[in-house]
Amino acid sequence: MASPRIPRNPGDDYTRSMAAQRRQVLSEHSGAVLAYVGRYSIDPGVLRGNIEGFIGAAQVPIGVAGPLLINGEYASGEFLVPLATTEGSLVASYNRGMRLLSECGGVTTTIVEESMQRGPAFRFDSSREARDFGRWVLDNLAAIRAAAESTTRVGRLLDIGQYQVGPLRYLRFNYTTGDAAGQNLTGKATRAACEWIRDHCPGHPRYVLSGNVDTDKKHSQINTLLTRGRRVVAEAVLSAEALHRIMRVDPVELFRWRQVAMTGAVLAGASGTGVHAANALAALFIATGQDAANVAESHAALSYTQLLDSGDYYWSVTLPALIVATYGGGTGLPTQRECLELLGCYGPGRVRAFAEICAAVVLAGETSLAAAVLHDDWVAAHERLGRNRP
Amino acid sequence: MASPRIPRNPGDDYTRSMAAQRRQVLSEHSGAVLAYVGRYSIDPGVLRGNIEGFIGAAQVPIGVAGPLLINGEYASGEFLVPLATTEGSLVASYNRGMRLLSECGGVTTTIVEESMQRGPAFRFDSSREARDFGRWVLDNLAAIRAAAESTTRVGRLLDIGQYQVGPLRYLRFNYTTGDAAGQNLTGKATRAACEWIRDHCPGHPRYVLSGNVDTDKKHSQINTLLTRGRRVVAEAVLSAEALHRIMRVDPVELFRWRQVAMTGAVLAGASGTGVHAANALAALFIATGQDAANVAESHAALSYTQLLDSGDYYWSVTLPALIVATYGGGTGLPTQRECLELLGCYGPGRVRAFAEICAAVVLAGETSLAAAVLHDDWVAAHERLGRNRP
Amino acid sequence: MASPRIPRNPGDDYTRSMAAQRRQVLSEHSGAVLAYVGRYSIDPGVLRGNIEGFIGAAQVPIGVAGPLLINGEYASGEFLVPLATTEGSLVASYNRGMRLLSECGGVTTTIVEESMQRGPAFRFDSSREARDFGRWVLDNLAAIRAAAESTTRVGRLLDIGQYQVGPLRYLRFNYTTGDAAGQNLTGKATRAACEWIRDHCPGHPRYVLSGNVDTDKKHSQINTLLTRGRRVVAEAVLSAEALHRIMRVDPVELFRWRQVAMTGAVLAGASGTGVHAANALAALFIATGQDAANVAESHAALSYTQLLDSGDYYWSVTLPALIVATYGGGTGLPTQRECLELLGCYGPGRVRAFAEICAAVVLAGETSLAAAVLHDDWVAAHERLGRNRP
Amino acid sequence: MASPRIPRNPGDDYTRSMAAQRRQVLSEHSGAVLAYVGRYSIDPGVLRGNIEGFIGAAQVPIGVAGPLLINGEYASGEFLVPLATTEGSLVASYNRGMRLLSECGGVTTTIVEESMQRGPAFRFDSSREARDFGRWVLDNLAAIRAAAESTTRVGRLLDIGQYQVGPLRYLRFNYTTGDAAGQNLTGKATRAACEWIRDHCPGHPRYVLSGNVDTDKKHSQINTLLTRGRRVVAEAVLSAEALHRIMRVDPVELFRWRQVAMTGAVLAGASGTGVHAANALAALFIATGQDAANVAESHAALSYTQLLDSGDYYWSVTLPALIVATYGGGTGLPTQRECLELLGCYGPGRVRAFAEICAAVVLAGETSLAAAVLHDDWVAAHERLGRNRP
Repeated sequence: MASPRIPRNPGDDYTRSMAAQRRQVLSEHSGAVLAYVGRYSIDPGVLRGNIEGFIGAAQVPIGVAGPLLINGEYASGEFLVPLATTEGSLVASYNRGMRLLSECGGVTTTIVEESMQRGPAFRFDSSREARDFGRWVLDNLAAIRAAAESTTRVGRLLDIGQYQVGPLRYLRFNYTTGDAAGQNLTGKATRAACEWIRDHCPGHPRYVLSGNVDTDKKHSQINTLLTRGRRVVAEAVLSAEALHRIMRVDPVELFRWRQVAMTGAVLAGASGTGVHAANALAALFIATGQDAANVAESHAALSYTQLLDSGDYYWSVTLPALIVATYGGGTGLPTQRECLELLGCYGPGRVRAFAEICAAVVLAGETSLAAAVLHDDWVAAHERLGRNRP
Repeated sequence: MASPRIPRNPGDDYTRSMAAQRRQVLSEHSGAVLAYVGRYSIDPGVLRGNIEGFIGAAQVPIGVAGPLLINGEYASGEFLVPLATTEGSLVASYNRGMRLLSECGGVTTTIVEESMQRGPAFRFDSSREARDFGRWVLDNLAAIRAAAESTTRVGRLLDIGQYQVGPLRYLRFNYTTGDAAGQNLTGKATRAACEWIRDHCPGHPRYVLSGNVDTDKKHSQINTLLTRGRRVVAEAVLSAEALHRIMRVDPVELFRWRQVAMTGAVLAGASGTGVHAANALAALFIATGQDAANVAESHAALSYTQLLDSGDYYWSVTLPALIVATYGGGTGLPTQRECLELLGCYGPGRVRAFAEICAAVVLAGETSLAAAVLHDDWVAAHERLGRNRP
Repeated sequence: MASPRIPRNPGDDYTRSMAAQRRQVLSEHSGAVLAYVGRYSIDPGVLRGNIEGFIGAAQVPIGVAGPLLINGEYASGEFLVPLATTEGSLVASYNRGMRLLSECGGVTTTIVEESMQRGPAFRFDSSREARDFGRWVLDNLAAIRAAAESTTRVGRLLDIGQYQVGPLRYLRFNYTTGDAAGQNLTGKATRAACEWIRDHCPGHPRYVLSGNVDTDKKHSQINTLLTRGRRVVAEAVLSAEALHRIMRVDPVELFRWRQVAMTGAVLAGASGTGVHAANALAALFIATGQDAANVAESHAALSYTQLLDSGDYYWSVTLPALIVATYGGGTGLPTQRECLELLGCYGPGRVRAFAEICAAVVLAGETSLAAAVLHDDWVAAHERLGRNRP
Repeated sequence: MASPRIPRNPGDDYTRSMAAQRRQVLSEHSGAVLAYVGRYSIDPGVLRGNIEGFIGAAQVPIGVAGPLLINGEYASGEFLVPLATTEGSLVASYNRGMRLLSECGGVTTTIVEESMQRGPAFRFDSSREARDFGRWVLDNLAAIRAAAESTTRVGRLLDIGQYQVGPLRYLRFNYTTGDAAGQNLTGKATRAACEWIRDHCPGHPRYVLSGNVDTDKKHSQINTLLTRGRRVVAEAVLSAEALHRIMRVDPVELFRWRQVAMTGAVLAGASGTGVHAANALAALFIATGQDAANVAESHAALSYTQLLDSGDYYWSVTLPALIVATYGGGTGLPTQRECLELLGCYGPGRVRAFAEICAAVVLAGETSLAAAVLHDDWVAAHERLGRNRP
């Protein structure tokens, strides 16, 4: 049997009829009927730059949670949050966490750092050449910056981290990228910088545009330390009263469990000490047209909590590598744009507000799941939990 | 201004009119128009168990790549692969990798291990009690297994890993879960097992259902070592001829770059030595109704490659924590089910085939991106790359 | 100038005169006088099996700390601890920690697990062969065990962990090794097992005796999870009164700092959440003839602490990879043996007692350094530290 | 029975008679005779600042390996290397590696970076205060540097890394420290800087001198990335001829094994991709009066190797966190100083030479052990190893 051949026609690629022709080939090959896939409301003409081989659309149900009260520097007020997911109880759980946080005065959000990377590697014949190249890069930083920034209107090169292993010199170009997530922008700018380096540096060193220290689409410790995208903190003080009333948990028990969960994360070598940031982020990312693959990097979350003398509970979650955009990519597609607009976050100048909302939603989920986990036993125990124990 | 209040009506929650009412509240609160979100083709009645607070659907464009020739134990033949994404060039890039792999005889896929976890933690007054509890668990494994398996038709408890820190004893219950991803199944079964333990073990030890060694929705080294979901390998031998013709790269240069990328990954503390498995998995997961949050765990990928004496190039990618389902969750929703059917993977008995396809698609992306990265400079260099260099 | 040539004479290697001849060559080559190196009290004749190219001895000063009250299962009573170090204040600091622990009722020590490894890797032509080989190993475990144990009087093969990446199957042979550290014993036994496998397994698979998952002389997450050597916990309850009187710190502040130190360790990707186990272990290892290179693995330490309702402070430290011996290696050399005897730990049957002592000494150092770090500012602060803060 | 009481007499602590009195107490308490411990050649008077509670000396046998030809920027020529160890075959194995390297033209060594740290943590009431504090630190860097450097003659503050988790701001003060290892120097300087910050920064922020990102006496990823102590590379090209003749291994097989070992290290979450740097470093550190506890950090080693077109083998090992000194600490004690003098490395101005030697010795061990591991099977295999396999 001949291989199936998908029609591809650069001149006429983004039409309903081309999509239908392709579905036809697929159906013939597989026997599958793609009726629902073909019932989309997007105008295919807007998809140029978003997809190739277009055949239709996945419809992912959106639920709404909230309101969530956020006291951010860019996002401020009560937010109703669209979450695209097929996991039952996810929206309800986040909704419960949002209620708790809102009743306790809301979530304070803070963007601590911003930087997006591309990480080329230069390869030399000896370690000394690699080291000396590092100095040359420092000495020529202004010209390298000019070469990089010549390719972009919004990108700014912050600095270049340098890491050497044997004769390999890894550079990590750190940029700010405005309202775009910035992976493409930084790729283009770094390519221009590397070409400039190759042309001007004595010896014309060989490079490859990514040596994996960027670390694109992968969780990494370097991201946790040095930030990728945005480093955002969401924090709140949960009153003992509200924890008891809404979550049916005691702050002391909650804190005890955090110690256990933190130790478990260290033992397991987990990407962070939080619980399930990925749930919030995947649902938000799909709803708002983010690159869902960035869940790989963005899901890292560090929890830091304290039991206060007042008996209340301070909870913070830090996302060291949150990668989001409010412009470009999938953000302008019809349903995605509407969900951003629902959050007041569509378009230029809104990305920091959106980043703050993402972190706040993550915190809502952390509190809600913690209570669910705890409630299962620790609190329901017949005997009063002895607190005079490790 | 009063807080917005989302209508929630358990009795009548999954109707078009309730969704419309909610969109109305959202629009009043935010000023956003949710017209496209409201133009979905799903019958809301089927969404019970998938979402709460339903307001409509995100429409994510699907492109098709392939055919990809797979020589699996469960998936065999040529596959046309639906990828839901808004990242331009992603489908085209995977398509190119699929062409390369298919022309080289296809991808061989192997499922090496299967196991899904829930990881409770038991807390004691002393380390000795914790240790002795571990022995008690071993001695009572049959009864614990019976308690766990009493809650599930398809789940089977394989074994229980035990890890101690001070007076904390972390258990990692490892199950097979049939065609379901199994996070809920294992939670329920493990809860029953823990209740049984608490009732029967002297001292009635306290536990919490998750101590974070599961490690749910988080990348971790324990997953890389001990598998979460399925451990799947995709491997192929790429002929030097096809690499030159299709990818315009030389196997020797490709291999040199792999060394650089692997070293960079180690340096950065990355989740694996692969490049961008997250891209394939996010796009496949959204198209086929998987839980997209599992990209957090599933994106870990270990590359192992070799230059063969023949001059050809052996490439394998191992996914140690691939979490997928072909039944339950979002797999039965209309567009999602159709995409699974396109792959011949909808319903019971198909999950292994689907896991193999996922790994094969990841490999297609690894080869394609590698060539793109390399082509940028290493090969385009004016001078022939000196091979007598490190 | 001709290269210096060290006299090596297998027949007459371990004599004072041969050592003197070598020192003479060294002096001629370097101009250095090796007078003190040559003033050793060891009889060179006993060094066969411990060293090659013998020229003399390093004299490392030993200080004594203690008494330290230990409530172990193998070590019980008050111990005076010899620490060989050249770092001023180290002995004094441990001595202070020991006083605190002893006044608070002593340290309880618990050996949780024992296992020493050798980790060969088998290489196949395909991942399926590698996977099927794993099953073959399981099916032939009894015979493999017999082959391994035929080479050793004390070693017992517990089980074989299996980890696959592509066509590579890594095995981790886990043994108990009696009073020896066991690296050589497990190497020899595993080599015999691998030879048996190669001879009997269809296809006669190729292997290499170490594929780096052992992970010999290196810290690793696999050790932290699965133990290497012995997993030992030392724990104590520190009374608030004693903390104030001896350490001048407050339990609440101590606990706050532990949160900060634990979070810092996670952020940095440290080998554990403890502080400086390496100091205790290096000093103990040198004094007692352990292999000091094992500090690399043994220094990993996980802290778990709690503030008790009583106001007292529970502190545990878990060493997941403590590698020690009381027999063989350097333990029988004159000064080393005497130091083991001082602890009542020389010879067969004493290794568990020694492991418990090591962990207890580590705990003494953790408490003492914590107090020193804290005292520097947190407590000395002019203003009373606000406790109602995160 | 009364607790034993160690005589401590600040005024008369470092005398032979005080040491003898202490040994007497120890013997009475334990029954152990400490005859050899008491037969030391050190004058106790020189030990002030190196030890407390002095009772005698551990005598660790020293073997000599070499000559090793080093082409460093600071160490150049043939070196005879003193290794203090009790592990039989260690010296012989290093000696073999040194012969190989020397016959192949020697080891080229390169110091890539230098920096020693102290890492205080500042704790705030909110994340915004913590972030804003970070800016204040940048704005006041000159004054902070002046405060730090006022405490030291040789220390220079390079820069301050900043890392935030919730309301905690971790600073990592990076210094150069001349010929000292620098842990004490950096502690003192950073304390002065922190006091200055507390006095001058609005709000007078609380700090603790170590928040564990230093990361003192612990392996960590932050050290691997950002260097602790010195980052040193040792590299060599091993001729195929010498590998066959001296090591009886084939470069192709060696390279294949490196892939397996590197993959194994990644799988295990090891501290590096090298094999056993800890062996060289522990033996060198004990012989030369280094702080042996620093093996914890220094043992991390990254291998990068390549098969050259010539058929020869390029091998580099990078030590990202090598902590050594040639002045202060234990380096001035009699046997230790002699061993440094043997290497031409005692005293001011010699630490870089010594660091280069350490890295070169590590490389010798890496090559020697690799050959031993390989020779066991891969090469000895009856059948010629198929090279056309992964």
